Order: sequence, then structure tokens, then C-alpha cells
Amino acid sequence: MEKFQTLVREIEGLKTDMVNKDFLLTWQKSDAEIMATQKVAEALKMLRDHGNSTKLFDSGLAVSQFRDNSTRTRFSFASACNLLGLTVQDFDEGKSQIAHGETVRETANMISFLTEVIGIRDDMYLGAGHTYMKEVGAALEDGHREGVLPQRPTIVNLQCDIDHPTQAMADLLHLKNTYGSFEALRGKKIAMTWAYSPSYGKPLSVPQGIIGLMTRFGMDVELAYPEGYSLIPDCLDVAQSNAKKSGGNFKVVNSMEDAFKNADIVYPKSWAPYHVMETRTQLLRKNDSAGLKDLEKQCLANNAKYKSWECTEEKMKLTKGGKALYMHCLPADISGVSCKEGEVAASVFERYRIETYKEAGYKPYIIAAMILLGRFKDPAKVLGALAKNGKNRVGA
Amino acid sequence: MEKFQTLVREIEGLKTDMVNKDFLLTWQKSDAEIMATQKVAEALKMLRDHGNSTKLFDSGLAVSQFRDNSTRTRFSFASACNLLGLTVQDFDEGKSQIAHGETVRETANMISFLTEVIGIRDDMYLGAGHTYMKEVGAALEDGHREGVLPQRPTIVNLQCDIDHPTQAMADLLHLKNTYGSFEALRGKKIAMTWAYSPSYGKPLSVPQGIIGLMTRFGMDVELAYPEGYSLIPDCLDVAQSNAKKSGGNFKVVNSMEDAFKNADIVYPKSWAPYHVMETRTQLLRKNDSAGLKDLEKQCLANNAKYKSWECTEEKMKLTKGGKALYMHCLPADISGVSCKEGEVAASVFERYRIETYKEAGYKPYIIAAMILLGRFKDPAKVLGALAKNGKNRVGA
Amino acid sequence: MEKFQTLVREIEGLKTDMVNKDFLLTWQKSDAEIMATQKVAEALKMLRDHGNSTKLFDSGLAVSQFRDNSTRTRFSFASACNLLGLTVQDFDEGKSQIAHGETVRETANMISFLTEVIGIRDDMYLGAGHTYMKEVGAALEDGHREGVLPQRPTIVNLQCDIDHPTQAMADLLHLKNTYGSFEALRGKKIAMTWAYSPSYGKPLSVPQGIIGLMTRFGMDVELAYPEGYSLIPDCLDVAQSNAKKSGGNFKVVNSMEDAFKNADIVYPKSWAPYHVMETRTQLLRKNDSAGLKDLEKQCLANNAKYKSWECTEEKMKLTKGGKALYMHCLPADISGVSCKEGEVAASVFERYRIETYKEAGYKPYIIAAMILLGRFKDPAKVLGALAKNGKNRVGA
Repeated sequence: MEKFQTLVREIEGLKTDMVNKDFLLTWQKSDAEIMATQKVAEALKMLRDHGNSTKLFDSGLAVSQFRDNSTRTRFSFASACNLLGLTVQDFDEGKSQIAHGETVRETANMISFLTEVIGIRDDMYLGAGHTYMKEVGAALEDGHREGVLPQRPTIVNLQCDIDHPTQAMADLLHLKNTYGSFEALRGKKIAMTWAYSPSYGKPLSVPQGIIGLMTRFGMDVELAYPEGYSLIPDCLDVAQSNAKKSGGNFKVVNSMEDAFKNADIVYPKSWAPYHVMETRTQLLRKNDSAGLKDLEKQCLANNAKYKSWECTEEKMKLTKGGKALYMHCLPADISGVSCKEGEVAASVFERYRIETYKEAGYKPYIIAAMILLGRFKDPAKVLGALAKNGKNRVGA
Repeated sequence: MEKFQTLVREIEGLKTDMVNKDFLLTWQKSDAEIMATQKVAEALKMLRDHGNSTKLFDSGLAVSQFRDNSTRTRFSFASACNLLGLTVQDFDEGKSQIAHGETVRETANMISFLTEVIGIRDDMYLGAGHTYMKEVGAALEDGHREGVLPQRPTIVNLQCDIDHPTQAMADLLHLKNTYGSFEALRGKKIAMTWAYSPSYGKPLSVPQGIIGLMTRFGMDVELAYPEGYSLIPDCLDVAQSNAKKSGGNFKVVNSMEDAFKNADIVYPKSWAPYHVMETRTQLLRKNDSAGLKDLEKQCLANNAKYKSWECTEEKMKLTKGGKALYMHCLPADISGVSCKEGEVAASVFERYRIETYKEAGYKPYIIAAMILLGRFKDPAKVLGALAKNGKNRVGA
Repeated sequence: MEKFQTLVREIEGLKTDMVNKDFLLTWQKSDAEIMATQKVAEALKMLRDHGNSTKLFDSGLAVSQFRDNSTRTRFSFASACNLLGLTVQDFDEGKSQIAHGETVRETANMISFLTEVIGIRDDMYLGAGHTYMKEVGAALEDGHREGVLPQRPTIVNLQCDIDHPTQAMADLLHLKNTYGSFEALRGKKIAMTWAYSPSYGKPLSVPQGIIGLMTRFGMDVELAYPEGYSLIPDCLDVAQSNAKKSGGNFKVVNSMEDAFKNADIVYPKSWAPYHVMETRTQLLRKNDSAGLKDLEKQCLANNAKYKSWECTEEKMKLTKGGKALYMHCLPADISGVSCKEGEVAASVFERYRIETYKEAGYKPYIIAAMILLGRFKDPAKVLGALAKNGKNRVGA
């Protein structure tokens, strides 16, 4: 556990201001806060791997609100909460809906009397998910200030229309462990590229999250998509500005091949074009199902023009030494396996399958770290105490 | 924690017989039992606010059965169980249905082998909800006597057709804390009045619960509704008899203004007329959807005659010093906010919004108190031990 | 607790190899493993009845996957997990579906990062349920070997198309406790017989489980069904071979009366004919709803020919001393109660009702034992430690 002690000392040295705050977008967090989250995640993983109990809560609720389907993130959140001793209570509004001011304000308080954390996924509507989380946050702030809530729960963004911080942060930890250190990421080229999928309407939050986070580590981030498949302009600005600050690089190209050239890491993944998501949100708000069907048809037809945007063995040969690390948030659309033609060739995926599982395996710890940092002022002390108490996780 | 010790001593002095019993209707409970529930709720809240663990169960299930939708009560029940260390397992029969004898008897046992408490909401059918809870109770009694169940779980009524004891008891605690003591409630006028709502079929259990409970504290309870919107006759009798015993007063009027006049507290809330609920139950039992639609239409049309039954600023001026405490079980139908015309004017609601949130905030503790008293013979001793052990709720 | 110490010593003497293994079919388990499961279940029940905490996990998920409806087994699984300190997280794929290779492999890993046990019910499709569980098991094996999963979760079969081991094992414990010892079962005649039910498509797993397990204890197992209602041929072979090894007897007859004659125990229960289940599976795979409707009609018509296959008072008179023990996995189709004509006469059922509840009451402990043996190499030591620590389950 010497490595653990080093980690704790490093965490001790990081100045963070995360208690009673929300984790919504990585670019709202300081470098120290990003590092603290990464290191607390690693420390919790070490404790668990070592057989230590990491139970910090004797009671307390963790509310999960999934306004879109989810299996992976649901289990990651459940695992993270369980690791810390929190009990998940699902808040299910019935059908996904765009709730309005008064209801949000009241409900946020009603579900929070004994709640420590609220995990929200709301990624269906462009302009709505992040806004909703901010509304909930303001209501919690108000409820706590007015004495309604004995504590101000921390919101963890489990994917919104703008960012998917638990995914991007797990991806970062995977990269750090693949290359040995955060320093080692400097200068590494990552190709975040659009890829063809027979489905439509996939959120933009993963590519936006990746370019927003990886540009902070001096990486050479190349975003590739067919013309018309751009992301939210603000997110491109964030990436540009981050790259400048970190001494990295950020570039947009319109060719998968260009992006793959000499890449250390490739992240081929489908998403819907920004302007389509905007139109879709308007149609959804108007409940215009004919319009939505039309849009889907057009969009799928348009997608079909770019079937060549597949991560094939040939394209992999363009990467550094032909051996770039393949990443995906899963599930991938695998050609000939989960669909006829998709994001990635079966043989490429299979070669990296286990790696993508490991990538996903960091998510429970990242979420647990976000919760821990949202609740405890002195995370180093808390982690140190867990190790010192040395209570076993399993056994009589 | 001196206040806590006083509370524990007061609880010690109350003679109660609640272990392995159900909490179905407040008027089935003695004054000492009502007081014990209030005081245990406060004691638990104090312990939690003080950072103490209140975990009394190392394992044990708490079954929740919601035969009608619920967010608030679901979270209150989940919070209460979590506070005590019980794990909620939802019993979901699929669609709400009126179950029959054999099934109830068997299922009640099947879900109870390791169960400490069963929380039930069943408020849709007049004559059915309370009856169902009694059937479950009898089945548990039988199962325990026959050696099927190692313990006899306590049922907590989370709202039935007759009473809503967790709401009324939370309301009472709110009143006690607003006015400083239970004694201070003596002589205070509370106007429990019908109010207009654009929806229909709201249960009678809240007004029935309020008049049945508040009349026990020497309050001046005035029930107001438009002609035809009466409650279950038995509940009026209960209120009358309670008022007589406590030296309070109970009166029915047909004018919101009359009720508001000089009131210390107003509780304007919509409900369906008793006879409509009876008809509705019959139609539901016959699955007569045409009949139900007709009834809804008639009933909404009838409601619309009483749109003036709104808690406006003008009516608030009629109350004592124009400053009566506004109460509501939430969500309220707020005019111009959650509906065009509703129970309460937006400005009135907004002024008391935080107060209604606090009112709701007592519910988890009231439910926890009902559970604790349903399981432990010596609640004062248990609470004393929790404080003495001084285990922290949060931390390594 | 002397009895407990004896039990622990007996468990110590049993050579088992169950850690990180799945419990799918009883006949894949050695005699020692079957006995260990029975005895651990009893030991856990003793500890709980004695007020001891049996919490072995400080954190850890238990995944439940119900691909068919369930109340009883859901609660049994929830109770078992809660008893040991595991938190249940439901894995709900939406509609029941026959999932394919890639998805199963990936999902099995995604839900298992911090998971100790996965309970699966998948009994709808002949040839599919057991196959699915094996696929999940292989994926977990692979994920653990590759370093994706820090532990290899144990799968507990909560009913598949072939066996229903948690039911059969609970039934066995009920028999053992009824007759005093496993030795006392030797020579006892059990009639596992088909019975009429107005429903159709009931799984074969209960009768298959019963004949597969009870034949191992030297019992005289008689399986009775109307012509055409046979079970999976392999399962008959298992029963035959088990009976031979144990010195018991296994016989198939086509008359309920013959089976009841001189029986010590009767287990009358409906199931669908093997060949119908095969056809049904094919139709389901083809989504042939017209074909399915046709099949149901034919099958119900065919069932109706055998309405005389009812466990009546008259038939009970044929059993040993007219006093055979009646068993059922519940819910039974009770004539004149839950249906017009069914599996059992109301008066017979009522006489044994409490016994069938007790039979069901063993299931949580059987499941808990399966989990414990799937996680701990030295179950005797773990149980001994629980008793020695003597932590109370309930109290401050």
C-alpha cells in the first residue's frame, strides 16, 4: 500500500472546492479538481482491490434519475453508491418529459430531505439536459439556504446534452493507466472521429466530453467528422482554448483517414449532427411525430452516404505503428455483429474488446470519487482513515 | 443534546402498545401513542441533525406497495427505512387491482419472511384501501401465529381511502414546531377547506386525516366545502367526538370565507365528493370506462361551479391578522403556475412555499417513528442507546 | 446453539468446490455440495432466528435478472442478499428477449464490476434459459481471467427451462424437517404428478427439478402425467440414474391415482407438454403470434380432457393412511378459489396451506446458502465466526 500512501499525499496537495458543488461539465472544474477526481478514483479502487471497506455512509440516499435508458451507467452509479454506503432510490417520472420551473423546484426538494447525491442522465434534448441539471442545483441551493434541506446534495451529471463527464473521466484514467502517467499523455495524438451507424439521434456528449477533457493534458486532439456533423460550437471553443493553455493541439478535419494518420489513440463513434439535434428537439417539444419520422428518414439517408467512415483494419494501419489504442464508450455498432455495417470492423473490435471493458470498469470509481469529493472537505484524510481502520469489505 | 434527553424521558413516560401492530388510522391510536410517534420522530431528527447514526437494523426488508402513483411518499418511506437500516423492496403487482382474499393471504406471507415493515398506499377505491390493509394485517397475524413468519411485520398506511396518517402526523409536527408546543395549539383555528382544482377524483384522506387528528389537540377545526362535497360520514363523527373530548371545536360550513375568518391556519385543498367516489368505485369495479368518462365530465363540470373556492390574497386577509399559516400536502394546484385556475393564488403559495416544504420534511421522520414504535418495546431505551453509542452517520 | 455447532462441524466435513462457480442444475452438484447447501441454509436460519447478524458483505452488488414475472422468487432473492449484506440491483432489459452472443458477453461484464452474485430467472423458452445462463457464466469467466472483473460473480439459477434448483432445494429442506432427517427420506414415496390447470405454458422446471433431486435420497419417486405430457427426456434419464445410484426408485405412470397410491408425499402441479413447449419456443422465435394463439387454443383444449387430474379429497384417501404431505411451489390453481376447476380441491389445499407457506419459507435461506458457498472457501469458518462475533441483527 505504499502506492496508496503516495496517492493520498498527492490528493492532500490538491486545492479543491467541490464540497456541496455539482459535477456537471469537466471544463467547469479546475485542473486540481480534475486530478483530485482521478486520484480519489484510483485510491478507492486500490482500497477495494485490497479488500478494504470503503463505506463512508451509515445511511443516506443517492437518487438516480434516468430520463433516457441506461444499463451501464445505471450499474456504475449503483456500484459507486454501494461502495460508499449510500442507498440508491430511483426517481422515475414516468415518461421522459421536459419539466417546468415550479415542478423542478419543488420536486428537487421533496426527493432530497435525506439525500447526499443526485445522479442525472438527461441527454435527449439539445439545450435541455444541462439546463435541467442547473435548475435542480439552484433548487437544492435554495432549499438548503432556507433550512428545508439539512444538507445540499451534490449532483453528478451522468450524461447531458453537452458533456458526459463520468465517461470522459473514466476514459482519461484508462489512458493514464495505459501510458503510465498523465505526463505521458503529452503529445500523444487522439483521433476522436465520427463513425457510421445505422441508428440515428445519438447524443453529442461523448465527443464533446473527450475533446473538452483531453485537450487539457497537452494531447494532440484531432476531431474528424463528415461535413455537416459538427458539434456544439461552444464545445469546439472550449477544446481550442484548453489546447492552447495546456500546450496541446486541437484540430478539426473532415476525413477519418487524416485523423487516424499517426494517431496513438482512435475513438470512432457515431453521433447526430448538431443542427439535426436542434431540429429534433424543436419537433419533440411540439410533439410533431410526423416531423420526427421525416427527420429520422432524412438523417438515416444522409448517414448512409458516409458508410466508409468505419474503423477498419486498413484504417488502423494508418495509425502509429498500426497499433493505436482503440477506445469506445460501448456499446459499439460492430459491422457484421451487432449490425450489418457499423462503426468498427469485427476483427478490430475483438482485438480491443477487453481493453474497452477495462475502460468501462473505471466508471464506478470515477463516480464514487465525484461523490466523495462532493461530500468531504478533506478527501485525503477520509481515504487515509479508511486504510488505517482497515475494515474488511467481506467476511464475518 | 439536553433537549434530546428531555424528549427521551418524555417518551419513557408514555404508555404505548404499538409493537407488532399496524398504524392505519390515527383515531385507532391512543393519545400517548400519537405523542410517542411525534416525539420519536423529533428524537430521530435530532440524532440525524447531530450527525448520529440511527441504524437499528443490520438487515431486514421494508416492503413498499404503491397501488397509486407517488413520488413524495415513496421518497419519504425510502428515507425512513434507510435511516433505520432497512432495505426497501418494492412489491409491484403490475396494474392496480382489487385483489381478493386468497391471493392477499398468500402474498402477504410470501413477501414477509424477512420483512420488518410493509408500507402501503391504496387510496383509489372508496371502501377498499383500508379494507385491503386490514386483510394484509390479518394474514400477517395468521402467518406469525402459525410459525410461517419469524416476526409479524408492522403495516404503515401510506394513504388509504380513509386516512393519510403520515401526512396528518407530519402536519401536526409542523404545527407544533410553528407554535412552540402542542399546548399552544389549543384554541387555534384551522380551516380545512375544499378548494377548486381542474382535476378530479382526488382522495378524501387528507381532509379526513386533518379533521380526525387536529380535533384531538383542542383546536378549533372548521371544515368547509361546497354543498355536495362532503366527506365519509364516519370521519365527521370521529372529528366531532374528538373535539368534544379534547375541549376543542368542530364545525362544518359551506363557505370558504366563513372558514377563513379569523383562522390561524388554512389548509385549502381539493377533493372529490364522497358520493362521486362511491359511484367511481362501483364503475371501476365493473370496468365501466364509458361510465367513468361520463362521471368525470359531470364532476369536472360541477367542480367548475366552484372556481371561486380559491385561496386568494383577498381571502387570506380574512384570517387572523391576515397572516394565517398556509398548509398543503403538495403538490398544490397553483393558479397561473401549475394550472390556469386552481387551489391557491401564485403569490399566496410563493409566500408560504418554503413553509410547505418544511411541512413535508417531517414525513420521513414520522414514518421512521411509526416503524421504530412498531418494532421496539422500549423506544426510549433504543433512542438513548443510539445517542450513547454516538456512532457517526458519515465518515471513515 | 449446540445444534448450530453440530451443523458447523458437519459442514466442515463436506468437501465442496463451489467458490466462483454457478448453481445452475442440482445434478451438476456433488452429494457433498447438495448437503453443504442444505446445512448452510439451516445454519443461516438458526443464526437469524437467534437474532444474530449474518452480514458478510460490507458492500457488493447482487444483480437480479427476471426474464419472466416473479414475486415470490424476487422477494426470496432480495431477502437472501439482504441477509448477507448485498444490495440488489435489478437488470431489466425491457421486454423479455432472446439475447445473442455479443450482447450477452459484453453486458455480463458491464453489470459485474462490483458484483458478487447474479440471480437469473429465464424459464420461458425451452432450450434457451439454461443456455443463456451458461453464456453469462462463460462471459464472467472470461472477464475475470482477462482482468476486467476483480471477482468472478456466482450465478444462481432462479428458474430456467430445465431446473428450478432454489425451489427443489427448499422443498428438500422442508421434507427433511418434516421427517426429521435426510436418512428418513429413504424409501418414502413421493408422487410428482401433473394436474389440470386452466392456464397453459407453465414451465417444466419444477417437476424436472423434483425428480432430479429427490431420487438422490433413496426416495421412491413416481412421476405421473397424462399421455403426451412428458418432460425433457434427459431429465428422465437423470432421475433414473440418480435413483439407481441412491438405491431409490424412479417410475413413470400415466395415472394420478396410481401415483397417489400409498404415497407419503404428493406434489400435484400443472405443466405444459414438452413437445408443446418446443413448438412454442419456435413460434416465439419467429414472432408468430397467430401460430401462438392457435397453439394455446389446441393446448387448452387438450388440457381440458384431463380435468379429472385434480388433487381431491378422494384421491388423497389413496395415499399412505390418507395423510400424505401435500406440496406445491405456489401459487396453486385451487378449484373454486383461484379458478373454477384446477390443480387441487379447496379443502385439501386449505388443510396444507400453512405447510406450503413454510415450504416457501426455506427459499431465502437456500438462496443465501448458494451465495455464501459461491463466495467463501471455508463456509464452516465463516458461520462459526458469525456466531462467535455474536453481533445482533436488531438494536442500537
